[in-house]
Amino acid sequence: MMNKGLLIVISGPSGCGKGTVLSEILKDDKFFYSISATTRNPRPGEIDGVNYHFLTKDKFEELIANDGMLEYASYCDNYYGTPRKPVEDMLNEGKHVILEIEVQGAMKIKEKCPEAKFIFILPPSLQELKRRLNKRGTESAEVIGKRLNEAVGEIEQSYKYDYALVNGELSLAVDDLLAIIRAEELNLKNSNNIINEVLKNA
Amino acid sequence: MMNKGLLIVISGPSGCGKGTVLSEILKDDKFFYSISATTRNPRPGEIDGVNYHFLTKDKFEELIANDGMLEYASYCDNYYGTPRKPVEDMLNEGKHVILEIEVQGAMKIKEKCPEAKFIFILPPSLQELKRRLNKRGTESAEVIGKRLNEAVGEIEQSYKYDYALVNGELSLAVDDLLAIIRAEELNLKNSNNIINEVLKNA
Repeated sequence: MMNKGLLIVISGPSGCGKGTVLSEILKDDKFFYSISATTRNPRPGEIDGVNYHFLTKDKFEELIANDGMLEYASYCDNYYGTPRKPVEDMLNEGKHVILEIEVQGAMKIKEKCPEAKFIFILPPSLQELKRRLNKRGTESAEVIGKRLNEAVGEIEQSYKYDYALVNGELSLAVDDLLAIIRAEELNLKNSNNIINEVLKNA
Repeated sequence: MMNKGLLIVISGPSGCGKGTVLSEILKDDKFFYSISATTRNPRPGEIDGVNYHFLTKDKFEELIANDGMLEYASYCDNYYGTPRKPVEDMLNEGKHVILEIEVQGAMKIKEKCPEAKFIFILPPSLQELKRRLNKRGTESAEVIGKRLNEAVGEIEQSYKYDYALVNGELSLAVDDLLAIIRAEELNLKNSNNIINEVLKNA
């Protein structure tokens, strides 16, 4: 019997580089990236089912009412959330589902899915995080200062996670993330039929 | 502040190849292989402090009385055990201590050191285990049959471990073992000062 996939929740402050780390591991199709749902309007270039599942407010509230959201929040009069069904379907197919989500959403997932594994991606230092945010060149000093404050608040919550890895050099961070996932595959909580496999012709 | 090393307990049936897997990872001096103590006489070529710590019965019993053994057992009128002090010294120096030990000893360690991580090395199948035992060419069919029976008994206990990995191809088994150890290094239970490191100049 195939093992179910792992539910892997990934957080990290803006500028920690988690998108780059994830795009490396998502090249392997044993992973499935969970796409969030929202009621906000698509921005130019955004595609339904790629950037977000764009839902009407009625549909979103219907999903909430039927326990169809693993977590959701409301922000600037719009809902954002994680639809339950695609996550569960992919886990049952044996895929590892990646949820990229901020700390509060992650903690809601923890309540509903205690078997999920929570991984926090850290910048090497706050100085380096500031350098990376400045390098983007798209935001004012004021916005960058706000993001740094938010980052400190998020990093202070990271002790609630199972694992933390530092994204200093990309390839090492990718290796660390893959090591965590491989170890979880080998954890007997997630793979106990391996023993029966070995013994089956005893 | 340096993190303490990890206590890693490794078991697996005779013929699973755990010695070969361990000799690969022990090339890295961040690991320390714990040497057992015994009261039996050295065999020709065996060196004190390399193959075993050869102790007198009085000395061994003194260590037992002073809680100086993490575990011990008596077999054919001789004691065998794991001295506590070198293990603790090396953990405090930040080294990962490898204990290679059979299932019953491992379970005694689990009582004294619940923070230890328990890894079981499986053969790909019992057929392959039999083939490997036959290949050694040193033992009679009767002895091999006995070892296979013992192997089944040990494998049936392996669900008590944290992790199980299959030693089919050596390099993959070594990678799996290193992935488990890396994940444990990144587990926040074992590395919580990483968060303070990142925040220290906030």
